[in-house]
Amino acid sequence: VIDADSRAASEEKLIRFATAALARAGVPVADAATVARVLVAADSRGIEAHGCARLPSYVRRVRSGAIAAKPSATVVRATPSSFVLDAGNGLGPPAARRAMDETISRARGAGVAFGAVSNSNHFGIAGYYAMLALEHDMIGIAATNAPRTTAPTFGTERAIGANPWAYAVPAGTEPPFVLDFATSQTVSAGRTIDEAALPLGGLGTDNGGHKGYGLGLLVDVMCAVLAGGAFGFVVPAATDARDTEAGAISHFFGAIRIDGFRDVAGFKADMDRELRAFKESEPAPGFARVYVAGEVEHERVLAARTHGIPLRATIWSELATLARELDLPFAIAP
Amino acid sequence: VIDADSRAASEEKLIRFATAALARAGVPVADAATVARVLVAADSRGIEAHGCARLPSYVRRVRSGAIAAKPSATVVRATPSSFVLDAGNGLGPPAARRAMDETISRARGAGVAFGAVSNSNHFGIAGYYAMLALEHDMIGIAATNAPRTTAPTFGTERAIGANPWAYAVPAGTEPPFVLDFATSQTVSAGRTIDEAALPLGGLGTDNGGHKGYGLGLLVDVMCAVLAGGAFGFVVPAATDARDTEAGAISHFFGAIRIDGFRDVAGFKADMDRELRAFKESEPAPGFARVYVAGEVEHERVLAARTHGIPLRATIWSELATLARELDLPFAIAP
Repeated sequence: VIDADSRAASEEKLIRFATAALARAGVPVADAATVARVLVAADSRGIEAHGCARLPSYVRRVRSGAIAAKPSATVVRATPSSFVLDAGNGLGPPAARRAMDETISRARGAGVAFGAVSNSNHFGIAGYYAMLALEHDMIGIAATNAPRTTAPTFGTERAIGANPWAYAVPAGTEPPFVLDFATSQTVSAGRTIDEAALPLGGLGTDNGGHKGYGLGLLVDVMCAVLAGGAFGFVVPAATDARDTEAGAISHFFGAIRIDGFRDVAGFKADMDRELRAFKESEPAPGFARVYVAGEVEHERVLAARTHGIPLRATIWSELATLARELDLPFAIAP
Repeated sequence: VIDADSRAASEEKLIRFATAALARAGVPVADAATVARVLVAADSRGIEAHGCARLPSYVRRVRSGAIAAKPSATVVRATPSSFVLDAGNGLGPPAARRAMDETISRARGAGVAFGAVSNSNHFGIAGYYAMLALEHDMIGIAATNAPRTTAPTFGTERAIGANPWAYAVPAGTEPPFVLDFATSQTVSAGRTIDEAALPLGGLGTDNGGHKGYGLGLLVDVMCAVLAGGAFGFVVPAATDARDTEAGAISHFFGAIRIDGFRDVAGFKADMDRELRAFKESEPAPGFARVYVAGEVEHERVLAARTHGIPLRATIWSELATLARELDLPFAIAP
């Protein structure tokens, strides 16, 4: 939403600027464009913490050599329905995009497929990759581990990251069901974190904190242990130091063909019925209505197409600073 | 744990009794034995609400004809990596066991596989089926929808059931990682539920209630919409009436070969390292240590092997009543 604290940016110009900034740092243009699209998609969906706010840090890390500008990524194991990609410590989005495309391609042949990626870095929003499956009439899955922020239930040490899971399920005339959630409580991105964050469900077990902790650990297993990457306490803690550390981050992707179970048209019609039933169900006093996962973000994307992408003034100014540092023109207004 | 409110039962005798009770109700002996093993496994793991406490209701529902004693279950679609089974409104455990075995068998060939089951009933603990994958060096997944108990975030209507997800991941010398969790908060089983329960994460969004709601709806989609079963508000609400209603319950199963990603021995050694790191991490003040998912249940299974399976006195006496009703001998003490 455009408000007093934010200004509208042009999607196209923002992508062009982010691409140019990364290319100036030495990233091949095709990879830079992939990163730009992923970051701008996050801003478009209103997930600011994984949007262009990350661009200065991406650029700094590539320029410092903490992230390889031109990684040599290698497939280290492959079957018709699974593979592992060593991302060569490159930027997360190009490795993740390649891996999700590969997962979808394998699922086209095998019906279902999964891919795990080791030796990568921050990949943006998990939902971006899960949603790539939608146009192929598949259910998409994406997950990543992340720098450690969160204490396990009954523990005090930062042991797990935000470790999001995303699932995208196509519908017919309704927007797709896109569940993209951190298994931890929100922590501010890009800031020093002095205290351990809590898992989804909060402290202790009363609201299911042990389930959130379990889901966070599951993400670490499915991404990092399966990929042979850095897991558990070997993953860096989230501190300011991360700008100069290699990410040691792992991802996990999945795709499931719907027509392996039912005809796609019938499935989508039922998804529409399912989602509408929830949206039309009785709201609690004081609430206008019930939402389904992905709906609010979908509305933001539609609004951004009309009004531009809202960028907070602080982020706008950080991007302007970055442009000056890189000696690039800065013109992102519509 | 055996305490003042509970008595120890013999696992073998309890399975024999539950098998006989279901067989007396008209269930084929092989199916009855499958149900018995699933219910007793739940008691063994300390998950009483899905254990033999359910046996009287299972028997009542079969005898009333609400559940088919001898269902004709049919595979309605199959590919090398996926299938849908219409369970013919039989008891949940035989359909679920068949489906998980089929999933594992397909995953052996295809690397990964999923199966969805429609027209079924309560299947016991999801973890039972997920754990069947472990001895095949696969990651197991199981989920089910359930009678409606839980309101969506910002809603008031009972729209979703307990809808558990289970994931079982093998380790080496450590017990396996078994995450088996309801996506709703606990509700008492087998009782009239007058008010809507809350999703995992609780009321509103502060502790992630919207994520728990999203996960619960995802389970309904992956089980029921994918299987072409009853979904959303078509699933019966949880009331006492359920003893006489057909279940209209759907399940979802998955299996993933670990060697599609890495050598199994290396994976298991890393799982041991991962799980130990969490177990040895610093506990919060007032807590003895940090646990990993499935560990407490594993300890209960070991204790039950030595001391017998603890059954609450009220359940013991309900089973004794059932034995009298069915004119069966009742001898479940060790």
